[in-house]
Amino acid sequence: MKFVRNTWYPLVWSHDVGRSLITRKLFGEDLLLYRTESGSVAAMLDLCPHRLAPLSMGRLKGDAVECGYHGMTFGADGRCTRIPGQPIIGAKSGIKTYPTAERMGLIWVWLGDQSSADPKRIFSLAQHDDPNWCITYGDALRIDANYLNLADNLCDPSHVTFVHPTTLGNSAGENVPVQNRDIEDGVLVWRWIKSAPVIPFFAQYGSFDGPVDRWHYYYYHAPCVAVIDFGTIASNKTVSEDERGRGLQMFACHLITPVDENTCVDHWLTVRNFSLNDDAASERIHADLRIAFNEDKSILEAIQRKEAQYPDFRRVTLGVDAAPHRMRRKVDAMIAAETERAA
Amino acid sequence: MKFVRNTWYPLVWSHDVGRSLITRKLFGEDLLLYRTESGSVAAMLDLCPHRLAPLSMGRLKGDAVECGYHGMTFGADGRCTRIPGQPIIGAKSGIKTYPTAERMGLIWVWLGDQSSADPKRIFSLAQHDDPNWCITYGDALRIDANYLNLADNLCDPSHVTFVHPTTLGNSAGENVPVQNRDIEDGVLVWRWIKSAPVIPFFAQYGSFDGPVDRWHYYYYHAPCVAVIDFGTIASNKTVSEDERGRGLQMFACHLITPVDENTCVDHWLTVRNFSLNDDAASERIHADLRIAFNEDKSILEAIQRKEAQYPDFRRVTLGVDAAPHRMRRKVDAMIAAETERAA
Amino acid sequence: MKFVRNTWYPLVWSHDVGRSLITRKLFGEDLLLYRTESGSVAAMLDLCPHRLAPLSMGRLKGDAVECGYHGMTFGADGRCTRIPGQPIIGAKSGIKTYPTAERMGLIWVWLGDQSSADPKRIFSLAQHDDPNWCITYGDALRIDANYLNLADNLCDPSHVTFVHPTTLGNSAGENVPVQNRDIEDGVLVWRWIKSAPVIPFFAQYGSFDGPVDRWHYYYYHAPCVAVIDFGTIASNKTVSEDERGRGLQMFACHLITPVDENTCVDHWLTVRNFSLNDDAASERIHADLRIAFNEDKSILEAIQRKEAQYPDFRRVTLGVDAAPHRMRRKVDAMIAAETERAA
Repeated sequence: MKFVRNTWYPLVWSHDVGRSLITRKLFGEDLLLYRTESGSVAAMLDLCPHRLAPLSMGRLKGDAVECGYHGMTFGADGRCTRIPGQPIIGAKSGIKTYPTAERMGLIWVWLGDQSSADPKRIFSLAQHDDPNWCITYGDALRIDANYLNLADNLCDPSHVTFVHPTTLGNSAGENVPVQNRDIEDGVLVWRWIKSAPVIPFFAQYGSFDGPVDRWHYYYYHAPCVAVIDFGTIASNKTVSEDERGRGLQMFACHLITPVDENTCVDHWLTVRNFSLNDDAASERIHADLRIAFNEDKSILEAIQRKEAQYPDFRRVTLGVDAAPHRMRRKVDAMIAAETERAA
Repeated sequence: MKFVRNTWYPLVWSHDVGRSLITRKLFGEDLLLYRTESGSVAAMLDLCPHRLAPLSMGRLKGDAVECGYHGMTFGADGRCTRIPGQPIIGAKSGIKTYPTAERMGLIWVWLGDQSSADPKRIFSLAQHDDPNWCITYGDALRIDANYLNLADNLCDPSHVTFVHPTTLGNSAGENVPVQNRDIEDGVLVWRWIKSAPVIPFFAQYGSFDGPVDRWHYYYYHAPCVAVIDFGTIASNKTVSEDERGRGLQMFACHLITPVDENTCVDHWLTVRNFSLNDDAASERIHADLRIAFNEDKSILEAIQRKEAQYPDFRRVTLGVDAAPHRMRRKVDAMIAAETERAA
Repeated sequence: MKFVRNTWYPLVWSHDVGRSLITRKLFGEDLLLYRTESGSVAAMLDLCPHRLAPLSMGRLKGDAVECGYHGMTFGADGRCTRIPGQPIIGAKSGIKTYPTAERMGLIWVWLGDQSSADPKRIFSLAQHDDPNWCITYGDALRIDANYLNLADNLCDPSHVTFVHPTTLGNSAGENVPVQNRDIEDGVLVWRWIKSAPVIPFFAQYGSFDGPVDRWHYYYYHAPCVAVIDFGTIASNKTVSEDERGRGLQMFACHLITPVDENTCVDHWLTVRNFSLNDDAASERIHADLRIAFNEDKSILEAIQRKEAQYPDFRRVTLGVDAAPHRMRRKVDAMIAAETERAA
């Protein structure tokens, strides 16, 4: 499977990485992760180069990892520092490591050319670090589907009406077409559903007597970050599209780990401008989103199985495919550019 | 896997199809099934042609199915009737449907040339609709074996002694050879075991003081219907082979769904001329048959696994193989004739 | 997978074979096993040559096996003795059998040229039949790893320190190199760890006030037998290397069944010169070894999975690999010699 190498991939929640050996899979490679004594995060291939024992079955000794089979030991930089019973250590005895960085509550890892691994290139949502907004971290939702099938879903507001009828959508949106355009590193897809009944989700956090306007702005930053800006405001409060912050507004961020060709993990979190410091609201919101995102998981996993069953089925293209197609062309172009640079 | 296309396949018990969306697999294809408001049964590929979501995850709206991902909607005839947010529906937006019919308590489906899908061609047992006979519907027994391996078993009375020693057979039959001949659409295999003790199964439904004659007539209607006429009569009541109805007689019908190359479902039912309107007898008979057919299931599944393990094993042919071989030649000839017509 | 054919393979504990039909897999072949009325052990392919039903689903009748599908019957020598309903038995109607023998509490089987199947060639430990030694039979430990990966482990005392730190090893051994040399049918690997603290395992069975010497002698008899002679003696009792019996000495025998390319079964037993007739000691020793051998199982199974995941990974060779490499060259040579003889 081809994938973009020179980008930061979100891999695991920061709070899951400490002074024990854990592993996460990325594009089929098992990575070993742990914090060094100074608190930085080491990432290396989870594989002793001697007999291929997983290093994660070994022991952390200071900042080094000792293999659990014969005690071969590797520093956080991957260099072999010890071979028990043997004075000489061959020059090629090390193991591959990967740069890491922390951002938005996650550990990110870089698989590509290490000289380009600048943490400034990691996606960042301004509101994440703004005290006027409430951040709540969600789950690491495993989805047995290719990450680009999840990306399709996250470039596609029109599915909300049909997949999430009892949580995030209602029938008012059924026939409202979506718009899309390029943004610097991806695609923006959006629509407004105007003068409609409030959806159950927002009804809990504001008092709405009459019809409301509801927006969805789906920002997709290729290849693995999606931010959904969605919110609602009473239709009689005239608001320009850029003044969405005057309504109830929430960013649902999806930071996606491509585990392998058939699996991804959706690390999701929310940032909102209402019910700040209200833990009960946070819990309720996440309970609702957990239901909704599991609705996506169900349909995406079913599609993944059908794609395997019908690899040559000739599909029908609809208008709603414009943005997902644009997103996939972006990812393809990134891969093609890397292939060309390498050649 | 090659199979006969222009034939009616039994697929699911009629009473399992109603106003909800269900699926059944036939030769590896997932079919969506539901009743329309008028009570007829719609069958179509369980696959939205847009993103390959299973239509069975969507909703039934009147006689149409709405996909659960983007609301694309299909009539019972497979034609696309709606694409939310999009006024124009392309001519090739439909999904494949299949003719269905009801007979013998089952829904039958036709995969071949639709102009030939005449329900009169469906197998029918005269006694099924005769008030002098008692019909009882059995199970949908899943067997992890190729349907022709089950067909072998159903052209083969000689296995009864060894597979069903405590239910349907006894040692009297061990050495009685079987006879077979062609019938119009298949094979007939039979034997009489004369002047033997009554088997436990029939001892419950008649009083037999002395030896009995027992018959098995296995009618195989290629490719997927087997009717086993078996019964018993006191040996001292002279009866010609055509007057079997004077004894205890039962038809065990096996209506087989070839699910895929390694799996089939045996829908079985019984029709008998004794203990009419006796629910307790029906329950007892089916409990006995359930044990017996699960004995067949065990051995057929074990054989299926061994065939996969030893694909090139050179087998020994026995006399009892004559009828199964004849049956397989019939099925092969039907497939060959279709291939020739298509070319 | 190529393997040595002309050798005796340990297959199953003697006490597990009786007058019922059991199966064990060896190099991917399912073997049917049972005792005849005279107590000898019959071994044959678990496959009826008629329809490939497993004979183990049939019935034992005297010394013969009757297939559970059509009653085809085979003697302990594999010859077909009966085909119900059919007077003539074809000359090629038999099933393959294998020579067996009992030794060291196990049934051994021979897959190669039957004229060479001399039971004297089966491995035998002299102390096994010596009343001055206490024999205790252990488990049949299934390990989802190739048997040669287990053999690597059993030619490799250096792993003990890292895999079994709380049971069989301690840190004193970390840097002590191992020695190895050829023996007639395999490899011997050994080391002494001198003037070190006693390990927890031996501390229970002797009183050691000061430092001890500890030895490991790993005898590998290719392809499937490993005997580990390990023991300990107070360092102040001068003992030559050949007088190990003056200390606490134990032979841990590993009699390995190669089930298939990815699985083996380690039948292990112990023979010791201390705490004779002490059942509580036997139980404690086996409980300790059970923990230790499951530690090996964990790491060997993890390695097996990694080898499948990284088939082309370029490995680093260490000094401790000398003996395992020597062992593998022995096995390869045995296979090559057979191939040559066959050509």
